[in-house]
Amino acid sequence: MNTIEVCLSPALFPFITTKDNLLVVVVDVLRATTAFCAAFDSGIEKIIPVSKLEELWDYKNRGFLTAAERDGKKVDFADFGNSPTDFLKQSFKGKQLAYSTTNGTQAVEMAKSYNDIALASFTNLNALSDWLIKQEKNVVILCSGWKNTFSLEDTLCAGALAEVLEMSGRFISSCDAASASLSLWASAKNSLPEAVKKANHYQRLHQLGQHNDLRYCFLLNSSTAVPVWDGTGFIDLSLRE
Amino acid sequence: MNTIEVCLSPALFPFITTKDNLLVVVVDVLRATTAFCAAFDSGIEKIIPVSKLEELWDYKNRGFLTAAERDGKKVDFADFGNSPTDFLKQSFKGKQLAYSTTNGTQAVEMAKSYNDIALASFTNLNALSDWLIKQEKNVVILCSGWKNTFSLEDTLCAGALAEVLEMSGRFISSCDAASASLSLWASAKNSLPEAVKKANHYQRLHQLGQHNDLRYCFLLNSSTAVPVWDGTGFIDLSLRE
Repeated sequence: MNTIEVCLSPALFPFITTKDNLLVVVVDVLRATTAFCAAFDSGIEKIIPVSKLEELWDYKNRGFLTAAERDGKKVDFADFGNSPTDFLKQSFKGKQLAYSTTNGTQAVEMAKSYNDIALASFTNLNALSDWLIKQEKNVVILCSGWKNTFSLEDTLCAGALAEVLEMSGRFISSCDAASASLSLWASAKNSLPEAVKKANHYQRLHQLGQHNDLRYCFLLNSSTAVPVWDGTGFIDLSLRE
Repeated sequence: MNTIEVCLSPALFPFITTKDNLLVVVVDVLRATTAFCAAFDSGIEKIIPVSKLEELWDYKNRGFLTAAERDGKKVDFADFGNSPTDFLKQSFKGKQLAYSTTNGTQAVEMAKSYNDIALASFTNLNALSDWLIKQEKNVVILCSGWKNTFSLEDTLCAGALAEVLEMSGRFISSCDAASASLSLWASAKNSLPEAVKKANHYQRLHQLGQHNDLRYCFLLNSSTAVPVWDGTGFIDLSLRE
């Protein structure tokens, strides 16, 4: 039996208690991990998470596609913002993408102290959990949050993933944050579009007019992506099996 | 209208967004804030929170009563551990108490950068919220957690307090953590004794045989205490009005 621990903010990641045989699953529903999945669905071959815009600019000059968002808005020089639905408009088969976001890439940077990292969103729950169940590792679900504070939508996604993993009979929740995420998901899942309207970042994006994204990010299992860290960037394992 | 923000761990306290006219309410259900309330109910006049055991020893030598707990267990030289029910066995009218705990006093230390601090537990919910409603301040509920990780019981208490404050019509939740606490409390409140059994610290104290405390700490409104910081320690305002 493997354990599930949920970490509700990157600022709490130094205090995780799972130590052995650990796989970190980063969640940033609005919108980084959902966008990574969408980018893979549209054929992107590899995604390099980048913290600083200076570094992203270097990647652009080396011929990479670039995506960058700050405070919910696209950064001017980048090809994409943080909108998953923008990736779905055409095929980017074989291209490589460098990606920088406010919260998601910060969480990925923290997770990089471990070798095993995967990315979860509502869109790839089943695809990812099928793969996770085969890994036989203890899972820590790291919610990206918003500038180190708690995000409702990431926690609901952590609860949804924990539920699928527990239902496999191979995993058991090991901390109060996992129990709380499961309970929040149980209360929200039958009316998810209503439940997520309470989230501050949902309201922020709503005011920015990102209605297509807000629908897409809560569409369960619309993606087949299994984004996994290969040592230098994320690749989609669903294409390699 | 005043705001309610919930901070789910002391490690997240640097990231609170409420800036003005702020009152911090520290919660450590198992067991520090519940014990503070019980100590006041038994006549204690003032409680000095102390971080280090060295400092507590100095207070003992100066004639203070002392209470100290580490990892759920009483520290040998102290008069009390962290058990609220131990305070209820006799009267300590007019005595002063120095108090050191694993998590609760850490949270209080962080809150001390603000002048206005109060303490909440399930036992003093109504007494405290009656007082809070009169203060016309924005409230940040700081959950003490367990060694910087999320605690279910503190979050449920934060949700219970937020519910009472919102019902007054004078407060509105301002963050996702407050929404989540309210939702968790709504799911748990009709079966609180069952719901809290999922909490890791409940299980830890259960294994240590602290059954009386585990019952007492979830007894709603059994205390009249309104513990408020006066600049050097906590006093019970319910005795002064």
